[in-house]
Amino acid sequence: MNTRSFASDNNAGIHPDILKAIEAANNGHVIAYGDDTYTEKAIAEFKKLLGNDIEVFFVFGGTAANVLGIKTATESFNAVICAETAHINVDECGAPEKFTGCKLLPIPTMNGKITVEQIAHHVHGIGDQHHVQAKVVSITQATEMGTLYTTKEIKAIADYAHQNNMFLHMDGARIANAVVGLDVDIKEITKNAGVDILSFGGTKNGMMFGEAVIFFNQKLAKDFRFIRKQGMQLASKMRFVSAQFAALFANDLWIQNAKHANKMACLLANKIKEIPQVKITQEVQANAVFAIVPKQSIPKLQEKYFFYVWNEETSEVRWMASFDTQEEDIENFVKFVKEMVK
Amino acid sequence: MNTRSFASDNNAGIHPDILKAIEAANNGHVIAYGDDTYTEKAIAEFKKLLGNDIEVFFVFGGTAANVLGIKTATESFNAVICAETAHINVDECGAPEKFTGCKLLPIPTMNGKITVEQIAHHVHGIGDQHHVQAKVVSITQATEMGTLYTTKEIKAIADYAHQNNMFLHMDGARIANAVVGLDVDIKEITKNAGVDILSFGGTKNGMMFGEAVIFFNQKLAKDFRFIRKQGMQLASKMRFVSAQFAALFANDLWIQNAKHANKMACLLANKIKEIPQVKITQEVQANAVFAIVPKQSIPKLQEKYFFYVWNEETSEVRWMASFDTQEEDIENFVKFVKEMVK
Amino acid sequence: MNTRSFASDNNAGIHPDILKAIEAANNGHVIAYGDDTYTEKAIAEFKKLLGNDIEVFFVFGGTAANVLGIKTATESFNAVICAETAHINVDECGAPEKFTGCKLLPIPTMNGKITVEQIAHHVHGIGDQHHVQAKVVSITQATEMGTLYTTKEIKAIADYAHQNNMFLHMDGARIANAVVGLDVDIKEITKNAGVDILSFGGTKNGMMFGEAVIFFNQKLAKDFRFIRKQGMQLASKMRFVSAQFAALFANDLWIQNAKHANKMACLLANKIKEIPQVKITQEVQANAVFAIVPKQSIPKLQEKYFFYVWNEETSEVRWMASFDTQEEDIENFVKFVKEMVK
Amino acid sequence: MNTRSFASDNNAGIHPDILKAIEAANNGHVIAYGDDTYTEKAIAEFKKLLGNDIEVFFVFGGTAANVLGIKTATESFNAVICAETAHINVDECGAPEKFTGCKLLPIPTMNGKITVEQIAHHVHGIGDQHHVQAKVVSITQATEMGTLYTTKEIKAIADYAHQNNMFLHMDGARIANAVVGLDVDIKEITKNAGVDILSFGGTKNGMMFGEAVIFFNQKLAKDFRFIRKQGMQLASKMRFVSAQFAALFANDLWIQNAKHANKMACLLANKIKEIPQVKITQEVQANAVFAIVPKQSIPKLQEKYFFYVWNEETSEVRWMASFDTQEEDIENFVKFVKEMVK
Repeated sequence: MNTRSFASDNNAGIHPDILKAIEAANNGHVIAYGDDTYTEKAIAEFKKLLGNDIEVFFVFGGTAANVLGIKTATESFNAVICAETAHINVDECGAPEKFTGCKLLPIPTMNGKITVEQIAHHVHGIGDQHHVQAKVVSITQATEMGTLYTTKEIKAIADYAHQNNMFLHMDGARIANAVVGLDVDIKEITKNAGVDILSFGGTKNGMMFGEAVIFFNQKLAKDFRFIRKQGMQLASKMRFVSAQFAALFANDLWIQNAKHANKMACLLANKIKEIPQVKITQEVQANAVFAIVPKQSIPKLQEKYFFYVWNEETSEVRWMASFDTQEEDIENFVKFVKEMVK
Repeated sequence: MNTRSFASDNNAGIHPDILKAIEAANNGHVIAYGDDTYTEKAIAEFKKLLGNDIEVFFVFGGTAANVLGIKTATESFNAVICAETAHINVDECGAPEKFTGCKLLPIPTMNGKITVEQIAHHVHGIGDQHHVQAKVVSITQATEMGTLYTTKEIKAIADYAHQNNMFLHMDGARIANAVVGLDVDIKEITKNAGVDILSFGGTKNGMMFGEAVIFFNQKLAKDFRFIRKQGMQLASKMRFVSAQFAALFANDLWIQNAKHANKMACLLANKIKEIPQVKITQEVQANAVFAIVPKQSIPKLQEKYFFYVWNEETSEVRWMASFDTQEEDIENFVKFVKEMVK
Repeated sequence: MNTRSFASDNNAGIHPDILKAIEAANNGHVIAYGDDTYTEKAIAEFKKLLGNDIEVFFVFGGTAANVLGIKTATESFNAVICAETAHINVDECGAPEKFTGCKLLPIPTMNGKITVEQIAHHVHGIGDQHHVQAKVVSITQATEMGTLYTTKEIKAIADYAHQNNMFLHMDGARIANAVVGLDVDIKEITKNAGVDILSFGGTKNGMMFGEAVIFFNQKLAKDFRFIRKQGMQLASKMRFVSAQFAALFANDLWIQNAKHANKMACLLANKIKEIPQVKITQEVQANAVFAIVPKQSIPKLQEKYFFYVWNEETSEVRWMASFDTQEEDIENFVKFVKEMVK
Repeated sequence: MNTRSFASDNNAGIHPDILKAIEAANNGHVIAYGDDTYTEKAIAEFKKLLGNDIEVFFVFGGTAANVLGIKTATESFNAVICAETAHINVDECGAPEKFTGCKLLPIPTMNGKITVEQIAHHVHGIGDQHHVQAKVVSITQATEMGTLYTTKEIKAIADYAHQNNMFLHMDGARIANAVVGLDVDIKEITKNAGVDILSFGGTKNGMMFGEAVIFFNQKLAKDFRFIRKQGMQLASKMRFVSAQFAALFANDLWIQNAKHANKMACLLANKIKEIPQVKITQEVQANAVFAIVPKQSIPKLQEKYFFYVWNEETSEVRWMASFDTQEEDIENFVKFVKEMVK
């Protein structure tokens, strides 16, 4: 058994129920590329959750969900406003620029969240042919810093975007953790709040692979099939993505997984707080814990537990809880941290 | 149980051994993005097969394997010479042009195979700044028409390419079917024949998803990690691609699957030949059968069996056998065809 | 004085009237980037010629006029249907693919002209996510082979394009030569025939540099300013392009220049026809003469007169007449050809 | 006569000597696309100035000079570090991202100049496949704020770049103004300082259009011809760009023009300083004057003199002097400013 670490929620494997769904879908032949009943059913589940007036498409990975979704809302001379810490800005190796041609306009933040005021600062030069034309605001929910936008904050951004002829994209790689963290109906923080395009994450919440691009603004979905294929994201054996999503929605598994991960992150944070040498740096609202640890202890900790150093200069690290994190894992880890930071 | 059809080898599901390997890999946490022992092992299997002097990378799908592989060998002002029927030319929705910037120079063929003479016709304007500069020849093995290049033919193309400062890419989405059809060591028709980059197919040979990009020309692999990530093809839970490949090589499963599929295609062709109203149009060298059927019978056939019409004008259709095709499937199908074409 | 050759109409210099207009525009300061009265006036001239319901933009060169015009009518997953000999297909180093992402679908022709029937053959797979979606037909008038589409032929293509939800682009690098050759009002073969986007050539008809992109379909012009700037084609001292165009329209200079060039090509062809060793291969309808000359004579001819060999295999060459070609030039050249082909 | 304004150095026209050179080059036929003696001579002039071990290419405009130059040094997964105020970052409508695929990493500055320390902050994640790989540092000389890098500062940046496997690009749209402002040999602040690629500006220093891309690092020039053509920047009547550059170097015109413009900016700044309501905000080292003026006076000033507001929030404006600015222009302007700001 491989040790469960706190490196990332994508270091975890597949939730047993989802694996079972894959096995069940492995049954004879079905038409490739999504013209199958598994895909039909998975899309129906999304519509049950989010309403019938949406469009749903599956892609392989999260970077693609973001990039292809944003492509539908932009021309190459547009710009995308986002947090400096946004996954699209720092973790996608320039895929957004390469595939859309757009410039990203990153906003420095303390907690991964951007505000209308900051966004407004970047909405200038509109109509000026020398300037890229801001067209999309992209926010991450839960953010890369483990924080959450409130419903009200999202609404304010969406309203501002729409008033300025822009679209709102939400990177929801951890949307389930946000829904749980805010204890709201998912519609409240997406559709009803004015989100136009949502990257709905599966992989970080117990799936093997697979993400969904949800269009609340259905007009934007018009050409997505072609964009997806040209974007190299059309799975031939699509049923195995679809079956996973169907399983994720059965018995509210997506909520249960996220609830557990968030709870574990909370527990981890609470126990870490007792260690005087370690300082929690971000509010723990989802399944991430950010902390500053003594620099010299990092290599010692990483010998046993792999995790990412977020900021080399400040020796801030990131620890993530997953659907399969156990209390025992936390106890062992915290104990080890205590020893190492002495 | 969904009916097994002859629509495509990607309408089949996952081979049981491969599914088992996925289950076995679902064991605790491992580092994401390929820094795990499953990936290490899968790469080692590829090296056992093809030599240690290669570079191996996994991607989600076949279109990506082709496009990203070709990207490593081209600048945007280059051109790629291929058969008019090549998957990169007609089935990838312009992904090669979009991602590489290159022009494709398609060659009309009777059987999906291109010759040195035809290629040479497109290698002109070299050094002329007005013209795209031909840099890659891409051939498909087995071809989209179910035919095979001989080792000698591949060598001739590779030699010509290299003499003209070009690279040879092989789309091996069905490379296993070619290896079996020619009854050769895979090295004979790839590495030793002079192939620089190989898209090694997994999905059409019993995997759930996942393809490999193999660099025999290791220099071309230098930046592939970045190209893969920017190309939105870096799987976070990579172990589940890797474990599938490892299972594909265990007990020569890749060969066994292809052998079976080829045999079934042969059987299908032989039985179809007995129907006077149907005319086989291509030599059956791998797992595809191309045939002209009476136009009016096509919708009737498709009511029960989904398949693709290859050429509306000539009413030529394509039937593919898979690793899981059964003799009984063929008997039932042929019986049905007989009835419908009367 | 540099010898006047028959290499290309862009080997000629600037027409004296146009040079005078440049000098006259060199008068104090004006706002850059087109917000000046020279540009206003030039656009007004275009509207006088083609109607007020058009949009007019200037760019540096002909390749850009074509590529940026086509960009307004396409998404990256679209395809552009054109003649195999089209400038966009063979003389722009892949600029259309690079900037638009689109695939070009070239049609082999005898005389540079494509037909509705040929175009229709390429309009397939519409709605199929695996295929590029044909969206633009691009024709060249006068063609690269010196031939002309009749008004009726253009209308047929435009009608077909529009019926199939496509746009018609016309590469009019030599539109003046076509207008003269057909002896029609320019509106007949552009706007009234159904052309959506026209590249209106200036450089090959006596200007120093500068081409216009004319949108008869005004909706397509909506974002052209941004596409032009992002396409690196926004001239800062725009007045000097505009002043040239204004001069081109004064005293019908554009028609006079083209009339002269066409007449000289005709004269050249007639004299060449008297040489039994040389065979004219294309109808001379504009300002180009294509001819097959004895292979061994080509280097000898090129020692004195630079020109392009069109087809090395058949030893077909191209000779172009310009606004400044003199009868004496033709006499001298023909005399020299006679000597060399003996 | 159009009033000479202080809007921009590209609101000026063509220097008389340069116009004369255009007229002189309008002499019969020469081969298109740069295979002519005018181009040969212009390149020779550049080599006389900068050494024989360079490569020189002409393009239409400044945006293209920057973008195409940077393209030679980058792959699509690279990043370009520059000042937030850099022309490539704010005035090229996303052309760098679109054409190169690269991400720009902008650095906020007070005066348009970036430092090694700031650059180093952006050089991270090297080798990490999730991150764009910083490959080019681009600095502007003179900067967009009218300031100058010292030779020592450039050397420090070049050394840092080279030590980190990066290239140094210099946007020299106003390189002449920098040479004059620093009173150095141009080689000192380019070649000898370690610049790899230089955009050498012509248009803002008295030319009609035309910029040069100079490669001190000759390896980078290898494929520039193809990049230029695919980038839609190959002028057919190239001689008219080349003749302008030759004239620019005759009698040190490029230096004389810049000297005059810088002197006029200095004079303007000195006179403006006497107006207590206006505050000069940047050191005047080249031909630009930045100043904060009372907000309500801006529209009044612009009624008579067009100029750009640099920062709406602080009511900072930019005034530029040109090769043709006269002392009288300054006196009239300053007098008018005095009246309007009262």
